[in-house]
Amino acid sequence: MIVVLKQNAKKEQVNSIKQWLEKMGVSVHQIEGLHTTVLGLIGDTSVVDMDQISSNPAVESVKRIQEPYKNANRKFHPNDTVVDVCGHKIGGGHFQVIAGPCSVECEEQITEVAQKVKASGATLLRGGAFKPRTSPYAFQGLRAEGIELLLKAKAQTGMPIVTEIMSTDHLPLFKDVDVIQVGARNMQNFELLKELGKIDKPILLKRGLANTIEEFLMSAEYIMAGGNQNVILCERGIRTFETATRNTLDISAVPILKKLSHLPVVVDPSHASGLTWLVEPLSKAAIAAGADGLIIEVHNNPKMALSDGAQSLTPEMFDDVMQPIKRMVEFEGKILG
Amino acid sequence: MIVVLKQNAKKEQVNSIKQWLEKMGVSVHQIEGLHTTVLGLIGDTSVVDMDQISSNPAVESVKRIQEPYKNANRKFHPNDTVVDVCGHKIGGGHFQVIAGPCSVECEEQITEVAQKVKASGATLLRGGAFKPRTSPYAFQGLRAEGIELLLKAKAQTGMPIVTEIMSTDHLPLFKDVDVIQVGARNMQNFELLKELGKIDKPILLKRGLANTIEEFLMSAEYIMAGGNQNVILCERGIRTFETATRNTLDISAVPILKKLSHLPVVVDPSHASGLTWLVEPLSKAAIAAGADGLIIEVHNNPKMALSDGAQSLTPEMFDDVMQPIKRMVEFEGKILG
Amino acid sequence: MIVVLKQNAKKEQVNSIKQWLEKMGVSVHQIEGLHTTVLGLIGDTSVVDMDQISSNPAVESVKRIQEPYKNANRKFHPNDTVVDVCGHKIGGGHFQVIAGPCSVECEEQITEVAQKVKASGATLLRGGAFKPRTSPYAFQGLRAEGIELLLKAKAQTGMPIVTEIMSTDHLPLFKDVDVIQVGARNMQNFELLKELGKIDKPILLKRGLANTIEEFLMSAEYIMAGGNQNVILCERGIRTFETATRNTLDISAVPILKKLSHLPVVVDPSHASGLTWLVEPLSKAAIAAGADGLIIEVHNNPKMALSDGAQSLTPEMFDDVMQPIKRMVEFEGKILG
Amino acid sequence: MIVVLKQNAKKEQVNSIKQWLEKMGVSVHQIEGLHTTVLGLIGDTSVVDMDQISSNPAVESVKRIQEPYKNANRKFHPNDTVVDVCGHKIGGGHFQVIAGPCSVECEEQITEVAQKVKASGATLLRGGAFKPRTSPYAFQGLRAEGIELLLKAKAQTGMPIVTEIMSTDHLPLFKDVDVIQVGARNMQNFELLKELGKIDKPILLKRGLANTIEEFLMSAEYIMAGGNQNVILCERGIRTFETATRNTLDISAVPILKKLSHLPVVVDPSHASGLTWLVEPLSKAAIAAGADGLIIEVHNNPKMALSDGAQSLTPEMFDDVMQPIKRMVEFEGKILG
Repeated sequence: MIVVLKQNAKKEQVNSIKQWLEKMGVSVHQIEGLHTTVLGLIGDTSVVDMDQISSNPAVESVKRIQEPYKNANRKFHPNDTVVDVCGHKIGGGHFQVIAGPCSVECEEQITEVAQKVKASGATLLRGGAFKPRTSPYAFQGLRAEGIELLLKAKAQTGMPIVTEIMSTDHLPLFKDVDVIQVGARNMQNFELLKELGKIDKPILLKRGLANTIEEFLMSAEYIMAGGNQNVILCERGIRTFETATRNTLDISAVPILKKLSHLPVVVDPSHASGLTWLVEPLSKAAIAAGADGLIIEVHNNPKMALSDGAQSLTPEMFDDVMQPIKRMVEFEGKILG
Repeated sequence: MIVVLKQNAKKEQVNSIKQWLEKMGVSVHQIEGLHTTVLGLIGDTSVVDMDQISSNPAVESVKRIQEPYKNANRKFHPNDTVVDVCGHKIGGGHFQVIAGPCSVECEEQITEVAQKVKASGATLLRGGAFKPRTSPYAFQGLRAEGIELLLKAKAQTGMPIVTEIMSTDHLPLFKDVDVIQVGARNMQNFELLKELGKIDKPILLKRGLANTIEEFLMSAEYIMAGGNQNVILCERGIRTFETATRNTLDISAVPILKKLSHLPVVVDPSHASGLTWLVEPLSKAAIAAGADGLIIEVHNNPKMALSDGAQSLTPEMFDDVMQPIKRMVEFEGKILG
Repeated sequence: MIVVLKQNAKKEQVNSIKQWLEKMGVSVHQIEGLHTTVLGLIGDTSVVDMDQISSNPAVESVKRIQEPYKNANRKFHPNDTVVDVCGHKIGGGHFQVIAGPCSVECEEQITEVAQKVKASGATLLRGGAFKPRTSPYAFQGLRAEGIELLLKAKAQTGMPIVTEIMSTDHLPLFKDVDVIQVGARNMQNFELLKELGKIDKPILLKRGLANTIEEFLMSAEYIMAGGNQNVILCERGIRTFETATRNTLDISAVPILKKLSHLPVVVDPSHASGLTWLVEPLSKAAIAAGADGLIIEVHNNPKMALSDGAQSLTPEMFDDVMQPIKRMVEFEGKILG
Repeated sequence: MIVVLKQNAKKEQVNSIKQWLEKMGVSVHQIEGLHTTVLGLIGDTSVVDMDQISSNPAVESVKRIQEPYKNANRKFHPNDTVVDVCGHKIGGGHFQVIAGPCSVECEEQITEVAQKVKASGATLLRGGAFKPRTSPYAFQGLRAEGIELLLKAKAQTGMPIVTEIMSTDHLPLFKDVDVIQVGARNMQNFELLKELGKIDKPILLKRGLANTIEEFLMSAEYIMAGGNQNVILCERGIRTFETATRNTLDISAVPILKKLSHLPVVVDPSHASGLTWLVEPLSKAAIAAGADGLIIEVHNNPKMALSDGAQSLTPEMFDDVMQPIKRMVEFEGKILG
């Protein structure tokens, strides 16, 4: 960590800062420049609170050099984490396609979609029971009933299920869910992350709309610091000025996350683009960039879908898209399913 | 609402969409262009789900013309809402300054800060008990104990207290809190918003880092749709490419929110900028742009603050800043305190 | 085009707008809603100035439905444009790799890089003679001499050359240049675009840092409206809040540009990321997403490079990266070189 | 300047970097951390090219500590620069309002607007002769004739004129223009900036849509490094995800620019918002934040304006807006006109 002092910092102030930093267990190197004095902090600086240092009136700025996350950091865990979902592995060369509707609507719908996406090659079933909707007047999901319907679809098809949690209150309802999804809007719902750190179910953590890669890894760190190492990272697009797509898929995030962290990375081309016809090229790009999986919206009657219809593929369109996906996964030397 | 159809949409498809829309109770006008057919929807379109329409394979795009919020909309409630916090009014010409530390740390700290900011002209005391921190290793707040300390400071000074909630689980702890704050990261924690709609305490709702003004008003609508009309909107900066400030204060949001909605609007110059020396010019700009209040971080020993020290004023600096604030509020013809 | 009128628009105002619009040769359909009146404009609305309509005091907003570009629009030119650079085709299934240093520094440097990148499979040589640098104190390029050195490298290797223009004044110096590049900072230097529309050399047009896909195509339209149809579009990353990469590669722009326009699209992974190790995964992603070419920075001694060294590959690294690029281009069924 | 080395950097590499840096005239301090080695560079680092250092394979990152601009830096020029335009001073407590139409359209229009805005208190006349328009099919300005009409309006009213340049080719046409404006799209047209550095006319430099404050000051530095110290900075909104306004006015940029630099700062509320009704609150906010002037669009018949009508005030609206502006300027203790 580098602490840049103000031009007019007094000697007593500088000494007082140095002593205070040394009390935290880091050693301090002072460099005198022409106009500026800089302190170099050496030791375990992950315990040092940057904000606290910045608040000192003699400090101009503080720059962190080491990553502030440990559990999620590849430097300390060089090998890929492989998350196992009922025998389906993600990461370390294993690739999974998660598919299903944005909202679970009724038993026929979810079971039919499950059977069809399974036949096309998907291995995990996603479906929304609790739905975060911008408008209070929009369909909010079937909630507890939705999870029951997902479990019925699992019983019929054998597909493990992935569904989103929106509140720690609902955690008991998720006891038979295979993968708990944390949505983009809850990426920094820290109370929820802490609770998910206490269980050992795989967590699919989606990147927030306006969160940096570092903040994303810090949210994974919240879960992992609690003891749950089964975190799957999901890039789903960030918010930018561009309006041609719903969000901007940050494709660079895939190789960067894979380099900085050992956790598996999946991509959500449906939410990233908001447009069905972009699912194929973005899925291919994600695989080419190193992703360990995809999560794709599929609905059996998207023109009547109760949420996010515009980006949902029909099962037939999904089957078409799965062909180039399979070829690309094979080309990249990964094992699908 | 305007529905633009695809160039190759078939007559049967168009008719089927029209019939389906008319079943929802809106009437449909068809306009045939050279290359495009457009449907104009007339009636109460706030019940129509844009996503559902977009999902129709014959639809190219959907454009909303009316605002999707009702309770928060000035069109339906032309007069300013005045929120009353223990006799201190916000909105409708009444201006309040909310001040206090980012984190409550101990009784001496919060009581001393409360006494000093009150002496300088602040009327509401803020202090964080539950703290959303990016890192799991950073100080997470005194939690329940923090609220107790705030209540002691209230008992000593008579100042109503404002503090942030992070989970519906904690709601019982907030029964004596005067204003419940929803932080930027929880602006779209819809389960929390719904719960806050069921009580009648004033809610200080902060705009999310990457949320549009429309999304911000939709989150207010979540609370109001549940029955709680006491919502105070807070602009606290948005995330942009600029790194000179922690966030970019969207000053235009102040007059826009005041025009679109009848709710009071306060500005947080401390979080918007992250720099103490910017609190004065940004506070003045906020008042000039029409704000109904300010929320400012003040800490009695910011160089040892356990969070957000860099942006905290000392009580002495706060007293200095209050002088131009008072003059500017008077100049704008508003009543302070 | 859809014109939304203000709630309180008077009948005379509405009639006056209608007459004025009809004089421009478009026909106008009026739709009366509960709260709003909407005018639907039918006919060739590319001649209608949206700003002019918005300026009418009775108008609330104007929404365009048709694309405002014609020459660049795939709707009017369904077949892929294939740009031919001295026999090297780009577009329509033909793929080219453009490589070379950010700045031309001396004859040995540019000739050596040219020979090496050619040996590895690059077919066009890029090199900066005029350099847009943020700082006036940074190296500004060899200018006219740089173009001469590029021509020497072309004479020795037979590789056509690509180099950036920064001012119409310099156009005479570019008479032997094979492809003229317009940099991101000049994407909306309209006077320059107009001049480039008068010649028939291929233009490599880079997307601006903060420009939408529509603005990008409008800049291509500037060149094409002048008569020059040989435009190659280049996605090179946009500016967002994320700081892990120099820019954020908008990978979705590739399939979107290919859908909206018939022009070839190349991707610049070096400038998009600013990091050499990202060139390989981003190049693969670009090809998978449908790109027609790549432009990659290669320098023979990047640690001494006079500009943009951090993102420059050595010729050896470039040779390594070309192997997966060749395999991916072949996998996608395109012809390289 | 701080150079962070890679974890696996070899001793020879580190020594070679140190020697190379010392040759540039800076002295180098080495700090050995647990995981990282850091080099602190001391001396005049404005000559050191960060990109060149980053390109070294042993370097992980480079962080600049001093500002890279000198002429524009308040550290080296503590007193406010006051730019004098034909006797009208900007900066150092002097405030000017620049007003006029986006485009000069005919003699009657520009003369009438000039007379009216002068009567309301504007002291400088702006008008576009060369117009940067997104579409090649939109009105491009009267060009040379537009400048002649501005000069006629100046002759009649005595108001100095401000107009935009788009190409170095047109410079001879600007010999009688009083202030040359560089538009947002040309903020990094470095060839143009260099030419403007060779003359001594005041330059009104607008901030680019996606440019940081540092880049903005570097563009001012380009002009000043050439010898022209008469630079007026103009904040006119940046591009963000928010769509309620045309751009997002970065109000914090005003006090930050005033702190970092001695140059005068004006604000353009018309382009920042794109909405006439926001001109008043944003003008007031700008003055409250410390601006030295405003530039406001005024058109005598905005509903027929050939460009940017939606954001143009009528002379009557401008007169209304000038009343609170005058009061606020007086309240801030500045001299208007």
